Amino acid sequence: MRLRTRVLLLPLFAATSFAQTYTVDGELKLPPDYRQWVFLSSGIGMDYSKEPSAHPIFDNVFVNPPAYAEFLKTGAWPDKTMLVKENRVSSDDPLSNGGKVQTSVVSREIHIKDASHGGWLFYGYRADSQSAKPVAKQEVCTGCHSKNGATETTFVQYYPTLVEVAKQHNNFRETSAPEK
Amino acid sequence: MRLRTRVLLLPLFAATSFAQTYTVDGELKLPPDYRQWVFLSSGIGMDYSKEPSAHPIFDNVFVNPPAYAEFLKTGAWPDKTMLVKENRVSSDDPLSNGGKVQTSVVSREIHIKDASHGGWLFYGYRADSQSAKPVAKQEVCTGCHSKNGATETTFVQYYPTLVEVAKQHNNFRETSAPEK
Repeated sequence: MRLRTRVLLLPLFAATSFAQTYTVDGELKLPPDYRQWVFLSSGIGMDYSKEPSAHPIFDNVFVNPPAYAEFLKTGAWPDKTMLVKENRVSSDDPLSNGGKVQTSVVSREIHIKDASHGGWLFYGYRADSQSAKPVAKQEVCTGCHSKNGATETTFVQYYPTLVEVAKQHNNFRETSAPEK
Repeated sequence: MRLRTRVLLLPLFAATSFAQTYTVDGELKLPPDYRQWVFLSSGIGMDYSKEPSAHPIFDNVFVNPPAYAEFLKTGAWPDKTMLVKENRVSSDDPLSNGGKVQTSVVSREIHIKDASHGGWLFYGYRADSQSAKPVAKQEVCTGCHSKNGATETTFVQYYPTLVEVAKQHNNFRETSAPEK
């Protein structure tokens, strides 16, 4: 009896949960709990600037736990995958020689795979935004991600815990990006 | 009836789970699922080297989810808190100007608060170690952490999502480290 109750409730919960992903105006909400999602990796200075900065931006990438669990099983991203990229200002660490640590958020981006919206889409958030429209020039994001992403349009080569999983499932495309 | 079953089972599970934290020889096991714990922050180049490196080390810090949840409520670390610091080699990102990304693990460290072992202790792991003894020179770690840690002997000033929580609970000590 208890088992049957759970089987009935779980799909209902999942559907309700994802329906709350967009605002009534069709903007994608920033998931309030994304900092407790699965961390994929951080980088630093991965921006479009021509000159090196004294305070390069750190980025942290998180994925929704069900999508991560599915990737571990199949080596592919399921529908409703959300990758949240959080960008933070760096500050010099006074306790080490040249070390840098993370401080405040400057912006966020979300890359979501949603068949009901035509597949992968990019959304850009200011530091204080709780929802956003799709990035206007999708082709700029998609062009680079399609050309250089190891798995679909995602940079799995930068996510150390997923590289071997994708390769085992023959879903890893060699690009110029590192995968040491 | 269902509620009572859960109340009885949960403490049993927690006790069993923590009993498996140490090997029979008393070494602290590397938690196999720590990459799915709550991410606190990353830094780069936060090591003891005197000279800058072409491939500075990234570190990622994760905390066990129950300790994170308790910190959000109380601004303090409960007994059985485990902070896992994972150290990874950096590599130049070929897609940006001077950006760096994470590659392979070089070592790990765990800082655990365990009253049954006298409080906070540091453990050091080689890249391929699954368990470790306490670091021999605890006083070197503890000396710096006691002097510079914002909360107990931990660098909460480097964990952006916890700084305000600790301050609200008057459990944040101002040090020279950044908290912008």
